[in-house]
Amino acid sequence: MSTPTLSITRRTRSTPFSSRVEAFGVKSYTVYNHMLLPTQIRGVEEDYHHLRRAVQVWDVACERQVELAGPDAARLAQLLTVRDLRSFAVGRCGYAPVVDDDGRMINDPVVLRVADDRFWFSVSDSDVVLWAGGIARGLGLEVSVREPDVSPLAVQGPKAEDVVAAVFGEQVRGIKFFRFAPLVFTGHQLLVARSGWSAQGGFEIYVDDATLGGELYDALMAAGERYDIRPGCPNLIERIEAGLLTYGTDVTRADTALEAGLERYCSLDAPIDAIGIDALRRQAAIGVTRRVCGLLIDGAAVPAQRAPWPITVGGRSVGEVTSAVWSPRLEANVALGMVAVEHTAIGTAVVVDPPDGNRSATVCAVPFPGSSQR
Amino acid sequence: MSTPTLSITRRTRSTPFSSRVEAFGVKSYTVYNHMLLPTQIRGVEEDYHHLRRAVQVWDVACERQVELAGPDAARLAQLLTVRDLRSFAVGRCGYAPVVDDDGRMINDPVVLRVADDRFWFSVSDSDVVLWAGGIARGLGLEVSVREPDVSPLAVQGPKAEDVVAAVFGEQVRGIKFFRFAPLVFTGHQLLVARSGWSAQGGFEIYVDDATLGGELYDALMAAGERYDIRPGCPNLIERIEAGLLTYGTDVTRADTALEAGLERYCSLDAPIDAIGIDALRRQAAIGVTRRVCGLLIDGAAVPAQRAPWPITVGGRSVGEVTSAVWSPRLEANVALGMVAVEHTAIGTAVVVDPPDGNRSATVCAVPFPGSSQR
Repeated sequence: MSTPTLSITRRTRSTPFSSRVEAFGVKSYTVYNHMLLPTQIRGVEEDYHHLRRAVQVWDVACERQVELAGPDAARLAQLLTVRDLRSFAVGRCGYAPVVDDDGRMINDPVVLRVADDRFWFSVSDSDVVLWAGGIARGLGLEVSVREPDVSPLAVQGPKAEDVVAAVFGEQVRGIKFFRFAPLVFTGHQLLVARSGWSAQGGFEIYVDDATLGGELYDALMAAGERYDIRPGCPNLIERIEAGLLTYGTDVTRADTALEAGLERYCSLDAPIDAIGIDALRRQAAIGVTRRVCGLLIDGAAVPAQRAPWPITVGGRSVGEVTSAVWSPRLEANVALGMVAVEHTAIGTAVVVDPPDGNRSATVCAVPFPGSSQR
Repeated sequence: MSTPTLSITRRTRSTPFSSRVEAFGVKSYTVYNHMLLPTQIRGVEEDYHHLRRAVQVWDVACERQVELAGPDAARLAQLLTVRDLRSFAVGRCGYAPVVDDDGRMINDPVVLRVADDRFWFSVSDSDVVLWAGGIARGLGLEVSVREPDVSPLAVQGPKAEDVVAAVFGEQVRGIKFFRFAPLVFTGHQLLVARSGWSAQGGFEIYVDDATLGGELYDALMAAGERYDIRPGCPNLIERIEAGLLTYGTDVTRADTALEAGLERYCSLDAPIDAIGIDALRRQAAIGVTRRVCGLLIDGAAVPAQRAPWPITVGGRSVGEVTSAVWSPRLEANVALGMVAVEHTAIGTAVVVDPPDGNRSATVCAVPFPGSSQR
């Protein structure tokens, strides 16, 4: 059959940048947090090479913010994540897993402390605003929980710093990784963070006035002309090579933060009151039985994937491939999967079963070689 | 530009029926509750005529269930909705708005009481499982909150009863509107409700075993062959004519249940403990300032709509059109909108502003004439 188109309606919200993305041409979209997210501009491979070579502007407005504000904002923020937020001063951001009482993943947001009593959870694809609102309501906390109209616009790629500096000024160069600063664009102060969902380096600009969106997009495109700037989007090849997990694809509500390999963001020894931390402490004590790992799958390019593929050893199920794609740079199929721990040693041979037939594969380290150029 | 395709991945979950829908051919999809939902099979107008004339099988697996189970299930269910659930015996279902403390819409599910201590909220497009889970966690209720793997399959259209009776037996004919019964398909008991998101009559079958999906789909298609059965999906023209609101399009978190025109599902006089009921009582006492109404828009077919269109009277904003489409049956553009109450009297003349230029329009009653054939 021919590939189904996406019905775009009010419910699949357009972004402040959709008009620009569509004027340039966008090959495919997905829906993420009830909002449009481009997935291919020219095509996954062409977008990949360009991202690693030049610089792209990404419409990631769908990374919606959940704002916690008020006297109990810090208490609620800490309850919501197992990462110790006590060291998060204003101006700092970072990954902070949100889990349920069983330690299972509800979301893997980037948390920004935008003021002493105000946090933004920049969320992946689930309605954290309802989880946070329900917790706050149930506990009677003095905090407002809402989704402000903030639309991140990312600039990613080796030339990103030059482009963002040309628009926002040279002080951009002083922003450290996972730090943000308020910078001015046409008289309007916007938060600019050194962050983003690629390993190529770059920034995310938190556009809190939708009417500025088009103008900012155009200014970045103009400033980037000399660097061959183009519209882009999170890239399937690049993010698998970098080992960046997609919530909903590589990790779901069925997986704990430790199974997701996020232990470096789980402050299990910290004396904090966080939902799910006790469950993760117990799991850490006995050890996980499965975890996310990298895989190299043999043979020609794997087909497009829309559901996990079984992984077996000696005919016995040991896990599943959750994301896989052909890497034209490595000339191999790179993949991520959830695998029983006894089969996660680097170099372990397994069999994977895409719809077009069994293939041999090997467990390998992530990030994949050369994924980051920094 | 050409219409963007939808990237289908694990995150945009396929359903137990996707293989059948795609084998027949599906023109467009949307994503609803992180799951695929067909929006056009042959095309909106062809699907519309067929639905009103014959019978269709709809893949509405995306109407996910949120299950509340345990000693506090009934208490939590009532907390979550402003509809009085005390009269909901096992076997009864019905619309039950879920609102926040301000009375604003979080979801408009159909609630099923599947056992004394077990409820299913069959939800529209928002993560009610997180809202319910957060409330339960915050209050320390003794209840489990989860999304079971239940995928509704709808049979809609004037011949629906004959088709469902051919597969499940004659007792189907005795099921009253918004009642459900456990019926047997190939040895497996499934809940079958007389309900569905059209005004043409029909049933929704709650498929709680994904491996049965294809077989049930095929059995319904075979039984319906003599009635010209086809795959279908919720139809834009039919649902506007019937006055069926889409959460996220016609009603959002910004609108209260009374503004959404759902007062018949709000038990404001009942002595129940429900989140948001006090806010709605206060709003009912002073009266709403705006509400959903029907509109007939003059001129030729309106363009496809992806954001609300302004409604003005004498150049002053009085609301917005949220859904609009050409009705080939009424030979007019039928629409729903949110309008300031002083302009909602039937027959009121207004001006609407789609992207292709101003048009005159008239407030009218919903459902539109002849929308239901029952």
